Amino acid sequence: MIVDISRKILIVGLGLLGGSYAKALKRFGFHISAVTKEQSSIDYALNEGIIDEGTTELDPKIIGEADLVIFALYPHIFVEWIEQNQKLLKSGAIITDVTGVKGSIVYKIQDMLREDLEFIAAHPMAGREVSGVENSSDKIFVGANYIVTPTDKNTPDGVNTCLELGRLLGFSNVTTLSPEEHDEMIGFLSQLTHCIAISLMTCNDKENMEKFTGDSFRDLTRIARINDLMWSELFIANKEALLNQMDMFLSKFNELKEMLETEDVDGMRKMMRHSTKRRALFEKK
Amino acid sequence: MIVDISRKILIVGLGLLGGSYAKALKRFGFHISAVTKEQSSIDYALNEGIIDEGTTELDPKIIGEADLVIFALYPHIFVEWIEQNQKLLKSGAIITDVTGVKGSIVYKIQDMLREDLEFIAAHPMAGREVSGVENSSDKIFVGANYIVTPTDKNTPDGVNTCLELGRLLGFSNVTTLSPEEHDEMIGFLSQLTHCIAISLMTCNDKENMEKFTGDSFRDLTRIARINDLMWSELFIANKEALLNQMDMFLSKFNELKEMLETEDVDGMRKMMRHSTKRRALFEKK
Repeated sequence: MIVDISRKILIVGLGLLGGSYAKALKRFGFHISAVTKEQSSIDYALNEGIIDEGTTELDPKIIGEADLVIFALYPHIFVEWIEQNQKLLKSGAIITDVTGVKGSIVYKIQDMLREDLEFIAAHPMAGREVSGVENSSDKIFVGANYIVTPTDKNTPDGVNTCLELGRLLGFSNVTTLSPEEHDEMIGFLSQLTHCIAISLMTCNDKENMEKFTGDSFRDLTRIARINDLMWSELFIANKEALLNQMDMFLSKFNELKEMLETEDVDGMRKMMRHSTKRRALFEKK
Repeated sequence: MIVDISRKILIVGLGLLGGSYAKALKRFGFHISAVTKEQSSIDYALNEGIIDEGTTELDPKIIGEADLVIFALYPHIFVEWIEQNQKLLKSGAIITDVTGVKGSIVYKIQDMLREDLEFIAAHPMAGREVSGVENSSDKIFVGANYIVTPTDKNTPDGVNTCLELGRLLGFSNVTTLSPEEHDEMIGFLSQLTHCIAISLMTCNDKENMEKFTGDSFRDLTRIARINDLMWSELFIANKEALLNQMDMFLSKFNELKEMLETEDVDGMRKMMRHSTKRRALFEKK
């Protein structure tokens, strides 16, 4: 089990999430190493004492010693890394990730992975509007969800290791979903909301609107400040599930529009009461 | 001018907004009276010292003595009140309101109003998620917009009285717009956002979604808890402007959907960068 602190943990990609993992795990005394693009990220993390060693190279020793490898990379870079470098990993190592989409990644990685390695996917639903290891913090996991998405290629030991990792990191809710359930849920709760926010933010470029804005519009567009590189990749990686959610939203929005056109007050009020009732479920506990 | 504190102010409809007006204006020493539906609202306001007298009846003395009359009623009740009771108002009285839509109300009221009265419309863009005079507070005007919507039937004195009222109430921004500009703005910033929030909240009734929700979905649906009676009336009272805004949103949302279908990454990234740039304008100062 992972609680054996003699296990060596390698983090590939030392950004906001990778750095936050390092911070949270270092408290337990694990040996933590990192492979990342920028030397400045390594320097920062060494200085802060959240990693024991790090490199910007494909160092066979650092990579080959790790018992648990956490990939905190963009989806396509993660896939490329495994294709090109999995030969460097130690036999028996467990691999996990932080990718926000699952179906299009999990099976691809598991299919190409060496027989003596196990990939158990996870999605830590935590983040901030800033990036980089310098902004990392283990506080971002408090109150957040950690979702493990096993397939029938996973072993009970692999799944349990990943669940325990989520608990050690400090996540408040640690659960499992199938990759498909995960993608449907994330398509609705996260990706559809971003699609709506950016459409609302760009659909009316009239000047001076900002002078009259109140909290409603601000709330609906907070996430319209968006990392275009990351989100366009995530949307495409979850294309089918997201298109399905977009259609469901469109159908409801058009229903409301039709009720307004025909001045169907009863229909609108019924929808608003449904909305009010359902929203109550989503209040922060 | 209204700063003459010997002027008597009558508030018709002593709810959250009417009560907040009373609180804010009482500080200056005005004589404030109220006509409202419930005796308990009058009792509360008398007890708090925010009105000098109040009635649930159509008291000819209270109504006939007012120099400035503020209507804080639902739009159709406001129109009915004027139709049936304007005979009770004092010659020369200035009338204003708090209605959240303008085009469908302002001209109707001005057309039916006695020649010796003046209606100058205003929209105080302030509110809370609770209602009733018991929840009233003059703090809700701080940081908020107060918009006066004159027509060519208004006099400079009427417009100035209304602008000064907004400043006395404590609004941070007091401006004028035409009724049509107002309705377009409110259709976009307020009503469209509510249409989106209730559609999002009701488009997917799958169970257990609330277990995985994060702040993005919560932000986009905060206003999905909605007063169905009031908002269905406001939507219909601004039907043409709102339908226009809904179409603009639909067109942009469908554009994004098409880019996702064809995997047009460059197009999506361009839209996201536009969104990010435009959102920066709407940050709270």
